[in-house]
Amino acid sequence: MPRLSRINHVAIVVDDVDSALSLWRDALGLPLQKRERNDGEAVEIAFMPIGESEIELIAPTTADSGVAKYLAKRGMGMHHVCLEVDDIGAMMEQLRSKGIELINDVPKINEHGTKYCFIHPKSAFGVMIELYEVPRP
Amino acid sequence: MPRLSRINHVAIVVDDVDSALSLWRDALGLPLQKRERNDGEAVEIAFMPIGESEIELIAPTTADSGVAKYLAKRGMGMHHVCLEVDDIGAMMEQLRSKGIELINDVPKINEHGTKYCFIHPKSAFGVMIELYEVPRP
Repeated sequence: MPRLSRINHVAIVVDDVDSALSLWRDALGLPLQKRERNDGEAVEIAFMPIGESEIELIAPTTADSGVAKYLAKRGMGMHHVCLEVDDIGAMMEQLRSKGIELINDVPKINEHGTKYCFIHPKSAFGVMIELYEVPRP
Repeated sequence: MPRLSRINHVAIVVDDVDSALSLWRDALGLPLQKRERNDGEAVEIAFMPIGESEIELIAPTTADSGVAKYLAKRGMGMHHVCLEVDDIGAMMEQLRSKGIELINDVPKINEHGTKYCFIHPKSAFGVMIELYEVPRP
């Protein structure tokens, strides 16, 4: 049975990373571990570790990106929660067997080797849930 | 300097706890640690531990509760993220000194002795942030 082990991150959509850092880094005191642009998704992301998890601040870098459209429609706020799982393939199979709709049929893999997928919010009571299988060290 | 140590919980508003458990417990496999009614807030809450954090599912128990109104206006989804801090009084003072608006002026205390407060979403880029100072064992 696949097992969830922790919240990997909570992703927050903001219109500008620098402005949002005035709260998250300067007022709340979270460390800014790294900041990177993802030109494929047309976003800038700030990664802020907290315990075994991270807060991720995500801002669009173009006016027509998916995140820019989300922002225009929904405004700033929490975008998704990412849960770490030990076997993403087994979890996806288990979810499908219960009738849960996934956004991607097979896991995607990011540049760090992490396998990931999203559960459709309409199968998740309005929440965008990401699943991560992080490669073992 | 007050320090944030972890995500205590992510709270999700749903219209019915039993329905939402079909995803969170039955499909994703998170344990249901406890389930309680809070008649003061007119909500039912399911607590599901994951790593050092929890997922909390919150459903209104009356049609005119604050959560029922939130649900009618915004729909189901993530409601707030709760961050644990070692000294909530010092953190509230630090936030005020940076011009961050808090919903309560002094910490409230729940039945477990946890001190808590909320940062106003308009000072937090659209996110409802709760702060917890949990009593030391």
